[in-house]
Amino acid sequence: MSDWLDEIKWDADGLVPAIAQDAGSGRVLMFAWMNRESLRLSAEEGRAVYWSRSRGKLWRKGEESGHVQRIKEMRLDCDADVVLLSIEQVGGIACHTGRESCFYRRFEDGRWIEADAVLKNPDEIYA
Amino acid sequence: MSDWLDEIKWDADGLVPAIAQDAGSGRVLMFAWMNRESLRLSAEEGRAVYWSRSRGKLWRKGEESGHVQRIKEMRLDCDADVVLLSIEQVGGIACHTGRESCFYRRFEDGRWIEADAVLKNPDEIYA
Repeated sequence: MSDWLDEIKWDADGLVPAIAQDAGSGRVLMFAWMNRESLRLSAEEGRAVYWSRSRGKLWRKGEESGHVQRIKEMRLDCDADVVLLSIEQVGGIACHTGRESCFYRRFEDGRWIEADAVLKNPDEIYA
Repeated sequence: MSDWLDEIKWDADGLVPAIAQDAGSGRVLMFAWMNRESLRLSAEEGRAVYWSRSRGKLWRKGEESGHVQRIKEMRLDCDADVVLLSIEQVGGIACHTGRESCFYRRFEDGRWIEADAVLKNPDEIYA
């Protein structure tokens, strides 16, 4: 049964945007893309599996860093073309820069300022 | 000064994905797209202005429904290609279906179920 995958309105590249939100804090942690297989695997494995557009392959979030995203809930929007994941972020770090969230720059006085601290050196994460 | 707009990595269509999150509840309310002008106007006017891909024009969220999104904070992700808005949702309804959030379908037992109530009849919203 994969009717639920047929309900998704995949874009011209066969992808759908995916937003990952921390189930505890509610913080939006990252944004990535999924193809049909990655969304199916996310549901089956209970962890976020994305499609890396730059590398052109499946990306099991945390496969190198250990920063796996355990899925608590998946939601679909009204147009069936965006997926929202409520996740538990293993290690408390979603961003490859070593920060909790990829959205660490805040708009202030006409510029983007770095508002969040680096929790772990990326060299250590990807050693 | 619009250097901050130059920092955005616009896609091939000159767009960037934008996520709107309720500043109070932390709930993710909707996902839309922005072009350069709509992001500039969002910052200037302090309300969410998107680019409607289907209509091919600027979309001041709430222009018909009254469900304006007042911007409390704007953030940019690590790749500078996704914008996150923390907003106050006027009327408490972001979705054109009359629900608080566009993400009202939850994945459960292999299917998408409607998990959230309609707060206001769309016919009344767009009368």
